[in-house]
Amino acid sequence: MTMKKVAIVGASGYSGEELVRLLLNHPQAELVAVTSRQYAGQTLAQIFPRFANHPKAKSLRFTEPNAELLAKQADIVFLALPHGVAAEYAVPLLNGGCTVIDLSADFRLRSATVYKDFYAHDHPAPDLLPKAIYGLPEVYREQIKTSQLIASPGCYPTSILLPVIPLLRAKLIKSAGIIADSLSGVSGAGRKAELDYLFVECNESVRPYGVPKHRHLSEIEQELSLAAGTDVTIQFTPHLIPVNRGILTTLYLAPEKHFSTADEAKALNEKITACYHAAYANEPFVRLLDGKAFPDTKNVVSTNICEIAWRLDPRTGRLIVMSAEDNLVKGASGQAVQSMNIHCGWPETAGLI
Amino acid sequence: MTMKKVAIVGASGYSGEELVRLLLNHPQAELVAVTSRQYAGQTLAQIFPRFANHPKAKSLRFTEPNAELLAKQADIVFLALPHGVAAEYAVPLLNGGCTVIDLSADFRLRSATVYKDFYAHDHPAPDLLPKAIYGLPEVYREQIKTSQLIASPGCYPTSILLPVIPLLRAKLIKSAGIIADSLSGVSGAGRKAELDYLFVECNESVRPYGVPKHRHLSEIEQELSLAAGTDVTIQFTPHLIPVNRGILTTLYLAPEKHFSTADEAKALNEKITACYHAAYANEPFVRLLDGKAFPDTKNVVSTNICEIAWRLDPRTGRLIVMSAEDNLVKGASGQAVQSMNIHCGWPETAGLI
Amino acid sequence: MTMKKVAIVGASGYSGEELVRLLLNHPQAELVAVTSRQYAGQTLAQIFPRFANHPKAKSLRFTEPNAELLAKQADIVFLALPHGVAAEYAVPLLNGGCTVIDLSADFRLRSATVYKDFYAHDHPAPDLLPKAIYGLPEVYREQIKTSQLIASPGCYPTSILLPVIPLLRAKLIKSAGIIADSLSGVSGAGRKAELDYLFVECNESVRPYGVPKHRHLSEIEQELSLAAGTDVTIQFTPHLIPVNRGILTTLYLAPEKHFSTADEAKALNEKITACYHAAYANEPFVRLLDGKAFPDTKNVVSTNICEIAWRLDPRTGRLIVMSAEDNLVKGASGQAVQSMNIHCGWPETAGLI
Amino acid sequence: MTMKKVAIVGASGYSGEELVRLLLNHPQAELVAVTSRQYAGQTLAQIFPRFANHPKAKSLRFTEPNAELLAKQADIVFLALPHGVAAEYAVPLLNGGCTVIDLSADFRLRSATVYKDFYAHDHPAPDLLPKAIYGLPEVYREQIKTSQLIASPGCYPTSILLPVIPLLRAKLIKSAGIIADSLSGVSGAGRKAELDYLFVECNESVRPYGVPKHRHLSEIEQELSLAAGTDVTIQFTPHLIPVNRGILTTLYLAPEKHFSTADEAKALNEKITACYHAAYANEPFVRLLDGKAFPDTKNVVSTNICEIAWRLDPRTGRLIVMSAEDNLVKGASGQAVQSMNIHCGWPETAGLI
Repeated sequence: MTMKKVAIVGASGYSGEELVRLLLNHPQAELVAVTSRQYAGQTLAQIFPRFANHPKAKSLRFTEPNAELLAKQADIVFLALPHGVAAEYAVPLLNGGCTVIDLSADFRLRSATVYKDFYAHDHPAPDLLPKAIYGLPEVYREQIKTSQLIASPGCYPTSILLPVIPLLRAKLIKSAGIIADSLSGVSGAGRKAELDYLFVECNESVRPYGVPKHRHLSEIEQELSLAAGTDVTIQFTPHLIPVNRGILTTLYLAPEKHFSTADEAKALNEKITACYHAAYANEPFVRLLDGKAFPDTKNVVSTNICEIAWRLDPRTGRLIVMSAEDNLVKGASGQAVQSMNIHCGWPETAGLI
Repeated sequence: MTMKKVAIVGASGYSGEELVRLLLNHPQAELVAVTSRQYAGQTLAQIFPRFANHPKAKSLRFTEPNAELLAKQADIVFLALPHGVAAEYAVPLLNGGCTVIDLSADFRLRSATVYKDFYAHDHPAPDLLPKAIYGLPEVYREQIKTSQLIASPGCYPTSILLPVIPLLRAKLIKSAGIIADSLSGVSGAGRKAELDYLFVECNESVRPYGVPKHRHLSEIEQELSLAAGTDVTIQFTPHLIPVNRGILTTLYLAPEKHFSTADEAKALNEKITACYHAAYANEPFVRLLDGKAFPDTKNVVSTNICEIAWRLDPRTGRLIVMSAEDNLVKGASGQAVQSMNIHCGWPETAGLI
Repeated sequence: MTMKKVAIVGASGYSGEELVRLLLNHPQAELVAVTSRQYAGQTLAQIFPRFANHPKAKSLRFTEPNAELLAKQADIVFLALPHGVAAEYAVPLLNGGCTVIDLSADFRLRSATVYKDFYAHDHPAPDLLPKAIYGLPEVYREQIKTSQLIASPGCYPTSILLPVIPLLRAKLIKSAGIIADSLSGVSGAGRKAELDYLFVECNESVRPYGVPKHRHLSEIEQELSLAAGTDVTIQFTPHLIPVNRGILTTLYLAPEKHFSTADEAKALNEKITACYHAAYANEPFVRLLDGKAFPDTKNVVSTNICEIAWRLDPRTGRLIVMSAEDNLVKGASGQAVQSMNIHCGWPETAGLI
Repeated sequence: MTMKKVAIVGASGYSGEELVRLLLNHPQAELVAVTSRQYAGQTLAQIFPRFANHPKAKSLRFTEPNAELLAKQADIVFLALPHGVAAEYAVPLLNGGCTVIDLSADFRLRSATVYKDFYAHDHPAPDLLPKAIYGLPEVYREQIKTSQLIASPGCYPTSILLPVIPLLRAKLIKSAGIIADSLSGVSGAGRKAELDYLFVECNESVRPYGVPKHRHLSEIEQELSLAAGTDVTIQFTPHLIPVNRGILTTLYLAPEKHFSTADEAKALNEKITACYHAAYANEPFVRLLDGKAFPDTKNVVSTNICEIAWRLDPRTGRLIVMSAEDNLVKGASGQAVQSMNIHCGWPETAGLI
């Protein structure tokens, strides 16, 4: 197999660092450039001691980001930048012939109007929106193969979309009234020097935030609406919990079919199980939990796997679905590498197991 | 003011230890006995080094629990025992003239049938159920004054009942469809030598458990039904998170009145605010959060306070209410002491600030 | 007893917040002013929600620091400021007749030359150095009673001086070759928005820092030299560990008397025990651990207590002494309040238990 | 390259689980058996959900340990058992022709007398001691190639021996007076259901233990004595800190050559640097830290790397050396796999990067 040259723009944040980890050890990708305004001139080994024993860590230096130059150096460029900024780099990189895998929110939405509503500024490159594909491999695998611009999903959205989309498509649940209650580790806030994310402020603390209108709602509702074939509005509550990594999402869903007896519950459970198995039994990065097991972030941390479990509650008639993922891997950098693998025709699990 | 003699049966667990902390420093209560099968014969100082500088810590020794003896020693006895066991002690203690404040589930339910449904064994003392009062001071303050048997509420129930009861009583929300999503620190599991609660199994881990039928549902639904004047069935999902103490509950509620415009939301918000202020503005242990603040367990840990905040979501028409408490204080031992203070006619905050 | 009016300059850091906690509940002190450039105009309740239920929390507002004004408002002023800045406030406050209790390093050293060597700038008020007393009550109780300027010790120094000074004074150990290996919780770094102290950078991390010449060495060696009657130079290694609060220090000491048999060890151990009991048996805030117990930060967190245990190692001939304290209480704000109590003639434990 | 069949006896503890992780993904080793009395009959996927997506996780089942059977199934057997028990399995496995890599302490000591002194029972198979090699690859690489019985070092010893042995061999430090102060994550205590290791007992806690005579001293002193060519007795203090994994060791050493001026320190530092580079510049799993960096467990967790940094203190004349490793990888299972790689003639880093 041929190697491809890859670059990371914005390699000093937590998603960028995780991309570095994955790409340094990827069998087909050669990491040729990492950019960081803050660390330009320093080696990977100096900034990320944990990679210092890698043969490249002492030779590869952070550079100032320069899209024209990167377009000449790399076949594939990952953007790990804040929203609004990513688009600035995407345009010249695409023009230069690169495949762009963007980890920001800039190309996740199909509508520039929705973008403005949730991100509070005009979309910086609305012309590109029709060219972008939402990089959720379990849903858009075929389109990822051919798209030059892949918008990798957000961490919360991945933990919600993977469990809900198959149920909506199969009409097993109602599209109205969906509630997603999510718990995220602190790396989700990024590597930012802010008081709120100091150790002492987060340790021995649990708190909700961004209630009721978190930005990730826009892409979640877009994708759920596409799955349902109708407009979907959901309730979403994120919470910050004192772990480095991991998202645990608990979903409250209303089955289309009423159930209240044990037999009805059993029959419905079989349908849901069949639906999930049809969707995910062959997916390398979704783990359906059988029996009595519940998702636990510690079982997915540092992997690209999303765990899913479900329970029917005959007392309330609801379906409870729970998922766990690593926000920096399946929720960000691992999923982006998975998309790269698909796009390049490599084994989907290359560099991810 | 006269002093009362108090005893703790089952003083070696986390709730028992917290009772020791509170009662050692209580201005009106004199701690005269602490029992523990495991530690009988050893001093408080030996088992709980953190209290070792208290004048009593080297003289007060754990004893084998003996209800007849305790009935002679103490005016008030706290039971910090597993459910099913507490009732065994309550009977002779009540017969001996003690006031009993039970932290177990044994006397929280009015129905022995519901008890059996949720706790999987016959109620050990059904005759006492009519004599017990549910020890939630903000709801049952008057009854606590005169009852000889106070069933102190569970930790999760307190975090749910305090925010929901005023809204149900005021008919501001529907009694159907209530969802409570709760996050608890590990002390909630008790001081038990089980693999699941080892440091390595809980640290860097987040997980749901007890879905969908947790035992605490029985008392939550009993009290919500009383507040609503109709049968209430709720959805409740507990999660274990890596903090020592603290419960954060997020509630999903349906306002009786539809709202979708900003004006409607504002009007409804004023009603909810007024409802909460009417209920809690004078309560010493409820803190209503104004403005942009959200509950955070770190702001209530080691206090007897329950924080409450709320948000209306005009996109979904839902009311989101969030609460935070210390599971061992307002969720257990602090609330029990608050009941003692009320029962004895002492200042309600004695020993609790 | 008469009340005194107290103020805190620099009340928004972790030591300042801990002073607020202690002084709000102090029976003799009335907190009349808290200053913070950053939060001027906001109430205590807004900045520290955990105190919001205190009667004063909604009326007491942070102000810009103004020494002249504070000198009129308060009898006693606590300075919780960075070194170099504290001295600026101390001069006008002392001139205005206040007692000043300074938690910075500015007045801990007797020599302005040593100050410059360790703090890299000229001492801002060398004339005041002779007037200041080192606020370690177990050593300088008498002088604290009468001094108008009390330099409260650093967190690491307290954890080292309390265990070592009695042994040096009694000539039980050699003054040469002392090693102190200390582990500190992250609050010791202050409430500073720096990447190094983010949750993700500290959690699941343990690291030494400031090796080999930490600033606290200057005051440690000054006080040990005074105790030994000769110049003492020690080895000190601080480490950062993922807890909010707490310092654990392990000391490696050389007994003056050689021992290698069990009998010799027993005899020496009795002398050390007697030495410690003579020094601390009546001290309210030192806990000597008997038997098999070891210090544990969890047993001293949120208290003003320093735990001490010791072991002789006949294999190496060394004495190992271990101490634990809360860096924000006995290591900072609690000790400062203890000094205030002594200075004002109040019970030494007032507001501290 | 040919594949080898490998088995793990005692695969349900933390070291066993880490061996499972490493061996499932090893390019030359085929994991054919995992034993556990407790979990016999269950699949890897059931007990360790984190590995459930591995192709083997649903087919490979835990079995009761049976040395005779294992000897037929496997070429190489890892023993992850308590000391005293490992030897029982080693004998029949060796007789059956297997290579045995033992992670317990049973074969680390050359003297059965020293074993009895530290482990308090007779050595269970003293005849085997001369056949065993201490599996520290950086010291015994050649012997590991040919030995059928490899005694993999303890976690603390590895963190001490790697930094100290080169200095002793080069006569740069004195062999007397060595002090090792170590901090370990809680997984070092094993997966045991004991109160001391509950989340609530370890979180927000730091404590020394096993002072002054920890069992690991026996192997540390044996190996240091061999390096020094004379008997070495050291001081060793372990502490428990609230992280899952990682050991940080701080060593206090006395250089042979006195230094007090900056020039002398510089010259000595160059010698030490040269010594370390000669020993480790080509070692794949030792990282010598240059410049201002200090070891940090977060940079080595889940890797087989040991980080080392050093500082000379001209004030005290001491050399401070600090190391960091993952107690379960370089301190246990990773090092055992490294030995297997060497023994089998595979690339030393196979399955470890």
